[in-house]
Amino acid sequence: MQLNEIIEKIEPVDGAWIENAKARTAQLVMPTRALGRLHDIAEQVCGIRKSLTPSIKNKAILIMAGDHGVVRDGVSAYPQEVTGAMVQTFLSGGAGINAISRHMGVDVWVVDMGIIPDIDVESVPGSARLIIQKLGKGTANFLEGPAMSRRQSEESIVTGFIQASRLFNQGLEMLGTGDMGIGNTTPSAAIGTVITGIDVNKMVGRGTGVDDEGLTRKIDIVQRGIESNQPDRSDGIDVLAKVGGYEIGGIAGCILASAYHRRPVVIDGYISTAGALIAHTLCPQVSDYMIAGHCSEESGHGHMLEYLKIKPVLDLGMRLGEGSGGALAMGIIESAVKILEEVATFEEASVPDKS
Amino acid sequence: MQLNEIIEKIEPVDGAWIENAKARTAQLVMPTRALGRLHDIAEQVCGIRKSLTPSIKNKAILIMAGDHGVVRDGVSAYPQEVTGAMVQTFLSGGAGINAISRHMGVDVWVVDMGIIPDIDVESVPGSARLIIQKLGKGTANFLEGPAMSRRQSEESIVTGFIQASRLFNQGLEMLGTGDMGIGNTTPSAAIGTVITGIDVNKMVGRGTGVDDEGLTRKIDIVQRGIESNQPDRSDGIDVLAKVGGYEIGGIAGCILASAYHRRPVVIDGYISTAGALIAHTLCPQVSDYMIAGHCSEESGHGHMLEYLKIKPVLDLGMRLGEGSGGALAMGIIESAVKILEEVATFEEASVPDKS
Repeated sequence: MQLNEIIEKIEPVDGAWIENAKARTAQLVMPTRALGRLHDIAEQVCGIRKSLTPSIKNKAILIMAGDHGVVRDGVSAYPQEVTGAMVQTFLSGGAGINAISRHMGVDVWVVDMGIIPDIDVESVPGSARLIIQKLGKGTANFLEGPAMSRRQSEESIVTGFIQASRLFNQGLEMLGTGDMGIGNTTPSAAIGTVITGIDVNKMVGRGTGVDDEGLTRKIDIVQRGIESNQPDRSDGIDVLAKVGGYEIGGIAGCILASAYHRRPVVIDGYISTAGALIAHTLCPQVSDYMIAGHCSEESGHGHMLEYLKIKPVLDLGMRLGEGSGGALAMGIIESAVKILEEVATFEEASVPDKS
Repeated sequence: MQLNEIIEKIEPVDGAWIENAKARTAQLVMPTRALGRLHDIAEQVCGIRKSLTPSIKNKAILIMAGDHGVVRDGVSAYPQEVTGAMVQTFLSGGAGINAISRHMGVDVWVVDMGIIPDIDVESVPGSARLIIQKLGKGTANFLEGPAMSRRQSEESIVTGFIQASRLFNQGLEMLGTGDMGIGNTTPSAAIGTVITGIDVNKMVGRGTGVDDEGLTRKIDIVQRGIESNQPDRSDGIDVLAKVGGYEIGGIAGCILASAYHRRPVVIDGYISTAGALIAHTLCPQVSDYMIAGHCSEESGHGHMLEYLKIKPVLDLGMRLGEGSGGALAMGIIESAVKILEEVATFEEASVPDKS
């Protein structure tokens, strides 16, 4: 499937269903809109699903994994081997995202979009949940040219679209985006700087925890990467190719797939939102399908969310990635939808309304 | 049991267990404290339970219900009959708290601490979940004297303590406080104003939704109630007696019971936090057992939380009460504890740590 065919078929959310849902909210046996954001979330999901009783029980996080050439220039506090080792940890169930997802009743899938090591699927436990779609063994260093070719950029998005679509076709009702890739706050910061136009100093943060010197170096690297590659901010494929990463393209594809299949997509933190910026550049109406799981502790994430005009559900000082903030928010989102469906009206409950 | 005996037996949380938990957090296979507030919450629960693997699966919301004499002066947008009608709705499962609690796996119990109607337990469905402990048929109007006697004030707290203790003795592992009582943001605002010392204009909000004129009247009523009754801010029983309510005393008792039994207590919104202010005045160390479920949309709630030095988990513009914000936060709190218990260490997962 071609990217332009996908984008053409994405429809806006249904305003009439949002209005239907608002009318139902107004009758619930509680003071007017007393559950605040929960009502907004439920109404958004109703508009997406064209239903007042949209089930979102069948949930998954799709973790997109990739390595980054720019790590050679020292942008991360952790060695590059951590990417592959963490992919194995996701499969064996020992990572943060696994604990949260088990509690929230969320499936976890991992897509190798281009990590350096080859995971030995014969020997690694849980590898039935790994999908290998390598676009390369890590991207090129964007200080030495584009991170990937335009063709790879487009392919990474389509790959994400296909993998998410496979889950939707199997009955998935709500998707959360996740990421793994040592160094990936650097391309995400570059994407954020280019697309939002925010100052690079505000967009770059400490990622997994670089010190002051590391932060200064990281800002310089992002700036040089943008200056030397000159990405076109109106062209999402170009921005992704020049300063992005395979897993970020995969995330953008997941988001397009959610809108295409009319399912809500829960965006995790900084890297996921960089993917969302790419998807939004390609097709602005996808943001109506997005729910921002949380606001990350990473500098710049708030600016990305503002640009997309989406408000985070949680704000707990998290900065793990993996889809953790999205999985955690899913419990709130599901509750919001159940409130609209299950709470009685004033009339049904025989409770006197406001005089 | 006497209130002073209860208070004497409340111990501080265990700092050594908090340190043990912090040491475990530091080894988890993620960047240092990358899950932010979730680590703080898990460590607090470990300190409360003296365990690195504290189960908090068995959860309940205890909704304390009462009516208020001050409603006669027009402090609420809803008629007083709503209190009793909502108690019946809680029992039949049609309220906001029921939908959230079902999703989160939380039991809901209701205590009639002093509502005006007598619920007919023979005919009302679900009344096995109702405990009748009436201290009166609504409080007196605090504009005409104290809301209740000193003896009733103490009894309301002890009643809350006994009811929560009954649940803890049956295996409850985490309690959430809830409230129902038309007019109860008014006594809560009075308690908040007296105990925190914050200006009454900042403490009084719109409750279920009074208009500008109603708000002005409410501020005046709170101010007059305080001036005429002169509650002693250092004496929680006195403040509760003069400007409080039966259900607010019940909530204070629930909080004391949680600390007494060493179980975390999730405080809901404005009314629950007024109860927490009473409990804290009686025994300051109870705040170490509290987790603030959310920050309410009601003006003044943030000031109450600041006074108690507790930070809310959620901030979603909610203002329903019933325990809804607490029940919603329980999914996050349980995830936090499971992360500490279930996530592998760097060593266990064979992932290289920071160099």
